[in-house]
Amino acid sequence: MAPRDRYAPVDAAVVPRFADVATFLRTVRAEPAADIDIGFVGVPFDLGLNYRTGPREAPAAVREASRVIRRVHPTSGVCPYDLCAVADLGDAPVNPMDKDASLAGIEAFFARLRDLAIRPIAIGGDHTIPTPILRALAKDRAVGILQIDSHPDTLDQLCGTKVNHATFMRRGLEEGLIDPARTVQIGLRGSRFSADDLSYGVEAGCTVITYDDYEAMGRTAAIEAIGRVLGDGPVYVTLDVDGIDPAFCPGTAVPEIGGFTPRDVQVILRSLAGKDIVGADVSEVAPCYDPTGITALTAANMLFELLCVTALAVDRNR
Amino acid sequence: MAPRDRYAPVDAAVVPRFADVATFLRTVRAEPAADIDIGFVGVPFDLGLNYRTGPREAPAAVREASRVIRRVHPTSGVCPYDLCAVADLGDAPVNPMDKDASLAGIEAFFARLRDLAIRPIAIGGDHTIPTPILRALAKDRAVGILQIDSHPDTLDQLCGTKVNHATFMRRGLEEGLIDPARTVQIGLRGSRFSADDLSYGVEAGCTVITYDDYEAMGRTAAIEAIGRVLGDGPVYVTLDVDGIDPAFCPGTAVPEIGGFTPRDVQVILRSLAGKDIVGADVSEVAPCYDPTGITALTAANMLFELLCVTALAVDRNR
Amino acid sequence: MAPRDRYAPVDAAVVPRFADVATFLRTVRAEPAADIDIGFVGVPFDLGLNYRTGPREAPAAVREASRVIRRVHPTSGVCPYDLCAVADLGDAPVNPMDKDASLAGIEAFFARLRDLAIRPIAIGGDHTIPTPILRALAKDRAVGILQIDSHPDTLDQLCGTKVNHATFMRRGLEEGLIDPARTVQIGLRGSRFSADDLSYGVEAGCTVITYDDYEAMGRTAAIEAIGRVLGDGPVYVTLDVDGIDPAFCPGTAVPEIGGFTPRDVQVILRSLAGKDIVGADVSEVAPCYDPTGITALTAANMLFELLCVTALAVDRNR
Amino acid sequence: MAPRDRYAPVDAAVVPRFADVATFLRTVRAEPAADIDIGFVGVPFDLGLNYRTGPREAPAAVREASRVIRRVHPTSGVCPYDLCAVADLGDAPVNPMDKDASLAGIEAFFARLRDLAIRPIAIGGDHTIPTPILRALAKDRAVGILQIDSHPDTLDQLCGTKVNHATFMRRGLEEGLIDPARTVQIGLRGSRFSADDLSYGVEAGCTVITYDDYEAMGRTAAIEAIGRVLGDGPVYVTLDVDGIDPAFCPGTAVPEIGGFTPRDVQVILRSLAGKDIVGADVSEVAPCYDPTGITALTAANMLFELLCVTALAVDRNR
Amino acid sequence: MAPRDRYAPVDAAVVPRFADVATFLRTVRAEPAADIDIGFVGVPFDLGLNYRTGPREAPAAVREASRVIRRVHPTSGVCPYDLCAVADLGDAPVNPMDKDASLAGIEAFFARLRDLAIRPIAIGGDHTIPTPILRALAKDRAVGILQIDSHPDTLDQLCGTKVNHATFMRRGLEEGLIDPARTVQIGLRGSRFSADDLSYGVEAGCTVITYDDYEAMGRTAAIEAIGRVLGDGPVYVTLDVDGIDPAFCPGTAVPEIGGFTPRDVQVILRSLAGKDIVGADVSEVAPCYDPTGITALTAANMLFELLCVTALAVDRNR
Amino acid sequence: MAPRDRYAPVDAAVVPRFADVATFLRTVRAEPAADIDIGFVGVPFDLGLNYRTGPREAPAAVREASRVIRRVHPTSGVCPYDLCAVADLGDAPVNPMDKDASLAGIEAFFARLRDLAIRPIAIGGDHTIPTPILRALAKDRAVGILQIDSHPDTLDQLCGTKVNHATFMRRGLEEGLIDPARTVQIGLRGSRFSADDLSYGVEAGCTVITYDDYEAMGRTAAIEAIGRVLGDGPVYVTLDVDGIDPAFCPGTAVPEIGGFTPRDVQVILRSLAGKDIVGADVSEVAPCYDPTGITALTAANMLFELLCVTALAVDRNR
Repeated sequence: MAPRDRYAPVDAAVVPRFADVATFLRTVRAEPAADIDIGFVGVPFDLGLNYRTGPREAPAAVREASRVIRRVHPTSGVCPYDLCAVADLGDAPVNPMDKDASLAGIEAFFARLRDLAIRPIAIGGDHTIPTPILRALAKDRAVGILQIDSHPDTLDQLCGTKVNHATFMRRGLEEGLIDPARTVQIGLRGSRFSADDLSYGVEAGCTVITYDDYEAMGRTAAIEAIGRVLGDGPVYVTLDVDGIDPAFCPGTAVPEIGGFTPRDVQVILRSLAGKDIVGADVSEVAPCYDPTGITALTAANMLFELLCVTALAVDRNR
Repeated sequence: MAPRDRYAPVDAAVVPRFADVATFLRTVRAEPAADIDIGFVGVPFDLGLNYRTGPREAPAAVREASRVIRRVHPTSGVCPYDLCAVADLGDAPVNPMDKDASLAGIEAFFARLRDLAIRPIAIGGDHTIPTPILRALAKDRAVGILQIDSHPDTLDQLCGTKVNHATFMRRGLEEGLIDPARTVQIGLRGSRFSADDLSYGVEAGCTVITYDDYEAMGRTAAIEAIGRVLGDGPVYVTLDVDGIDPAFCPGTAVPEIGGFTPRDVQVILRSLAGKDIVGADVSEVAPCYDPTGITALTAANMLFELLCVTALAVDRNR
Repeated sequence: MAPRDRYAPVDAAVVPRFADVATFLRTVRAEPAADIDIGFVGVPFDLGLNYRTGPREAPAAVREASRVIRRVHPTSGVCPYDLCAVADLGDAPVNPMDKDASLAGIEAFFARLRDLAIRPIAIGGDHTIPTPILRALAKDRAVGILQIDSHPDTLDQLCGTKVNHATFMRRGLEEGLIDPARTVQIGLRGSRFSADDLSYGVEAGCTVITYDDYEAMGRTAAIEAIGRVLGDGPVYVTLDVDGIDPAFCPGTAVPEIGGFTPRDVQVILRSLAGKDIVGADVSEVAPCYDPTGITALTAANMLFELLCVTALAVDRNR
Repeated sequence: MAPRDRYAPVDAAVVPRFADVATFLRTVRAEPAADIDIGFVGVPFDLGLNYRTGPREAPAAVREASRVIRRVHPTSGVCPYDLCAVADLGDAPVNPMDKDASLAGIEAFFARLRDLAIRPIAIGGDHTIPTPILRALAKDRAVGILQIDSHPDTLDQLCGTKVNHATFMRRGLEEGLIDPARTVQIGLRGSRFSADDLSYGVEAGCTVITYDDYEAMGRTAAIEAIGRVLGDGPVYVTLDVDGIDPAFCPGTAVPEIGGFTPRDVQVILRSLAGKDIVGADVSEVAPCYDPTGITALTAANMLFELLCVTALAVDRNR
Repeated sequence: MAPRDRYAPVDAAVVPRFADVATFLRTVRAEPAADIDIGFVGVPFDLGLNYRTGPREAPAAVREASRVIRRVHPTSGVCPYDLCAVADLGDAPVNPMDKDASLAGIEAFFARLRDLAIRPIAIGGDHTIPTPILRALAKDRAVGILQIDSHPDTLDQLCGTKVNHATFMRRGLEEGLIDPARTVQIGLRGSRFSADDLSYGVEAGCTVITYDDYEAMGRTAAIEAIGRVLGDGPVYVTLDVDGIDPAFCPGTAVPEIGGFTPRDVQVILRSLAGKDIVGADVSEVAPCYDPTGITALTAANMLFELLCVTALAVDRNR
Repeated sequence: MAPRDRYAPVDAAVVPRFADVATFLRTVRAEPAADIDIGFVGVPFDLGLNYRTGPREAPAAVREASRVIRRVHPTSGVCPYDLCAVADLGDAPVNPMDKDASLAGIEAFFARLRDLAIRPIAIGGDHTIPTPILRALAKDRAVGILQIDSHPDTLDQLCGTKVNHATFMRRGLEEGLIDPARTVQIGLRGSRFSADDLSYGVEAGCTVITYDDYEAMGRTAAIEAIGRVLGDGPVYVTLDVDGIDPAFCPGTAVPEIGGFTPRDVQVILRSLAGKDIVGADVSEVAPCYDPTGITALTAANMLFELLCVTALAVDRNR
């Protein structure tokens, strides 16, 4: 049996969507292995937050919500499970009471995936997690970044801590993990700590598209800019769900009104077909503030979007 | 007293909106009778679902939510209660543990309305219900359909069953109840079971406007296409609330992100003024997933939109 | 590695409770096999309900809620995983739109467990499920029953259907699956369809302890009666969570006020140590009416109670 | 057709519990008439509250919740619909923005029922409503009162207003509507405005049983005292749901922890068989704080308890 | 210490956002004083509603939600706390059971602020509150109004009452408090009591932009019209959150589907930079219908928008 | 003005309960000062949890819930505000992303209170917080402890960390802060990590009353034992709300079914009148799992119980 069949998701005609154990998009729960092309990984870490908390429960909630996702993409027609082997690799090891140990554990887990040439799609966890993930994935070569977010995450510190949900972009730039020339931050908005919250990214050479910019230029132009900046090199995509308006994603740690619709994000992610997606995450889902479950549902759908474009990258690179 | 006065809704200045028994839009609860022009009918059937369930509670929830609807349409100025006699006809008979008996009961109830020349506006129930309704209403002549939905409902079967919430369109086309040349499916999106989920409708001759198409062509052009395709013949309108984005309608069985706003649907339904609306339904409301009640509220508002354009049809046909 | 180690639940000190895939009490998800002594089985069936619905989601919700359960019983000191091999066997096959097919599938699944000598602990599903389970487990010899419930489930039919959530006890007695002389119905209360709703069980020879009786005699005497009636033969335990007061279990299909506390039920179940428990179920959890999750939490705890006394039975029968 | 049949509640075997329009206990919605013995009346008034508000929605919510109540009492075997004619009389007229007009409207409505010899069972509304109800019912002769409540409602004023949810008992005593010698206040507890909040009732001659007293004397003794004090004369029963512990009735305006279970209240109300119940109310349900619906469910069950003992009174007085 | 420093909001780097007592935007809770330029005022009044109620809890809920707002505006770069002294002045005095006393108390409180030259930003309370506020603020000179709302609030009465949540605009025009030539009503939509609900404002000379108009003309043109009509004189801004679509603001008394996004309102409010904002309110937040808290969150963000443009007005007028 | 008047809580007859800024029990928000006898302190720390999180929001939620508490105790008649000066001292300093810094900050804050002779009543925060509090309060002399809890909190470590929500009792005993001879642990229950989870406390000399013991001995005997063990020396009371059954306190991090009612805890706390209460905490409230607010309400009431018995201690020690 080919790997892609071995790990194929459960058939809803045999096991109803609501039945049996929940895995990401109903793929097989497997340990990391060389025959896996793309691995979903939960990263239930939430010790990097300075306001509300709760994302430690997101991997479980998104696994449940992803029961509803089917096999084939509605726009591109891609069926990722026909292109490559996709599995649920469980959760990266975290220590719920020890931030440093967790960061080390996450980094080690993703380093193992890098060594196995598995492209990871992570579900956070708070938005601290790109830091340990990039330390693993981008150790040898800086990656371009598409960051969809309401906050720039370029602060130097928060309450005196250097690694938290508001600093991943600055840490990654400082550590040479992120190539600013191939990096886009999009959707930025919301009240700021100081007038220059955004300047670090701009000065470092990133392309910054605030929500105001986005609205002014239109989605098509924004997508064109994203495509141009990201170029042909390796790309890591990070989606903080607070980039999406809280009517669609209320279950998040630091909601900011006036943001993207899920449709916007879907179309942006779909435009990544052809890019060399080497990893991705969907972060900041906080299920305890999500009584209707639509935040987890949105995250699950975004995992599918990310999966489809990553599967195309896998397929192209064989 | 004229029928339209006999069945006129309760006056909120006399009985406050929150008071007394809830009926659809506060109309009189009446048994079907020849002097009624338009009848609201609950169809609390939910045995046709393969994921989440709960629409059996929708007629009750929408009756409650409809307390807030007033008498006059804000855009057209139509007051349907001045044009015709409108009543709440109660719920079609269902057996909560017997799918086939329920389907027969629903069909018989709507056949009775057809015989009385009452134009029904149904509130489901899951999206199985157009099948028995159309078997009653379109027995003698195929109708055009406006289907607002995220799913095409043209599968041949689901888990081996032929009549369920994903097959009404195929059954109706097969049985000659639906005229494909005067049928529009709009809003389709969401991951698919297979790459050709949509092809049946297209090949049968229906006009299919996916959400991607809708966004590309714009609302005005879409409405123009709907008007052209539906033409002058009898039209049945079916609104699956999962056609609307789950931020606006979280309380539904199979939510799909990235869809219509209620505003979109309002404007589309308003464009039906002048069409010969012979029946309609609003389906897939699942109150148990609707903690804020906005799904039921949206459904109630859509009943009023449907009522206004149907009242115009009644008035034109006197 | 001994079977009991092979299937041992995940250690919370290694994988935090909130992390990774959810299985019942964090046991290993395994296919039925001869080296398994006790198997948890989800039965996501809810086509037998005449009021609210939703228990199809209970196995998923209870798996999630059971993340919090530890290894050792607080009163008896029993660690079931030291006594026998316990696994999560997934969900029995159901067809969400076909009641008869589902009943057949459930029966076949439990027949397979019987043939493998696995003692099943089921999580429903609505309270129809003891019927197919007993048809499998009690095919060759009638079992004694401990039914904890607010309703007697001895109706002959409901809306003309014979197998539903209100008839399992009558069907089981009629079919010779249940030994009335070793059967106790406890907790019965709530308004009735007719004055003789309870008489069938009494006349059949079951021991009926209404909630009024329970309060009058006290818990100690009730437990003594249960022990005496159940005797030494094989016993099946069925817990309808509506037996518990809805303040503790709001997430259920047909709530009845004025019932047991979870403490009552814990103490009753603990008294079954020494009985030959051959199977059990916890039914009628409806997660969509359980916004705080305490119903699923209670069910998860009751699974642990049932597991401990069943493990003692396994251990005694080696 | 006898009145009791004319107004008989809908049969759940024909119209499922979840179907059609909701009335109190599924009785017929009728205008007050001389052939009705007992009438349910909604009183959606909530302008008398000094903390949280919302009881204007209670009649609607309790009508919905009462769908689950069956015909026959589980303990007494009474079927009230066999003993007398019971109907849902709609809601007393209130003006949602005018407190005085509402109080006058409520009083007039209940005066009409008194004149028709209909015994009313009201569902509030806040606990102001016994004042206008008693002004109607007890105009000609003082009644005994059973007040189940956490608060004594004997304040002279609240924020300068004399008629509000904390004063009905004092007003009724002052106005000669209440016979203190036949009055019991039970369940009183919770922090107080001043040390003598309770003294007015005691000094007026009422029997005051605090929750401390209740626990000390036991339920049996309390019921004995209630029976003795109420005697044989006309009795009005008022249940403020905050008398019940907020775990069971969270949806209330002023919750007080540490109170009755619904079981306690059921048994107390059942003890009223044989009393001349001339009216009753269940008040202070606030649906907007009741996400699980158990408060409305509890209220609906208590209406059934009150109905059964009132039906016995009707039957005895023919 | 300068007043603007004395009243400066708490620094989140010292006191985390979730910590300590909640005030509006974390400003200092202070009594009205002459050195305060802008004062936030809660107005917990909700006795003017004819449908759902609950806004008395809004000031508390919005204080809590406003913990997340930072110091600097993302688009304009304005830091209001650098421009002027801003404080939380507590709540205007209301009597929860006496409408007239409350209206008098509110008017007196705002008159005191007027006398101290404090520009108030109020958080309602239902949409009755502009009436007493304008009676205080506009006593000496009529103000221009920007009303963002789904309802025109130009009824003459509701259930016979003249001052309530649907009449402030008519009362203000009648009493000469509002200058119609400098007044815009925007966002109007929703079913109407009668065909001429909107005509009063139009005939009085106000500029009425229905939601249909808004969509047709586009946001830029609408903003241009607002700027032109409001002109250079004193402006009062009133935001009824039901002007915003209920997906974004479900927690409101009378939700109307098909409305503004928060983004729309943000951009409109931002366009007021340069106007002489003399007061403002955000009304009709009903926390008990807001389980996700996004309505209160949206209101808190709108307070910040209003604060920034008012601070510019203060700064310009020194 | 006497200190007890200076800090007296707001009068609900002047400022309605729902109005203005929320402080604990409506006392004055003040900085620690020598004229304050008892201080409420929020401790929004939740970095010590291994399952669900969220207690950082508890101080805010309990402040809001405590709006409903009045001035006088219903059973004892004590008005604490007449006996001593009580204030809300704000929240102890925590760093939401740095556990060690938070623990140091909390200890320092409580040391300051000790130096000012203020008796603190803390609201956690997770149940780690007794460790830093006792390090401050019991530095010079060991205290007796009344721990109401479902878990013993005597583990040596959790996931390798020594200070967390499951270890305070062991740390306190090891560090000589707790006098085991005057310590009672009551309410212990729930599944265990190992058979000897409880043995540490027993072997150290604490009095351990499991929930089984409590039920067997009865509340009166348990209270007698508590009184005897605590004796006359200084006592610290710590209430983990998971000691209370989750039907009453669903909003907690690690719920355990089958526990105390709030009534049980009220009566136990009331029995402490006469003890030398030197400090107390109510911990583990997690508002994000508390949709009805009853957990915060219960905690607020328990603060009042603790306040009353502490006020008696203050009064006795003058």
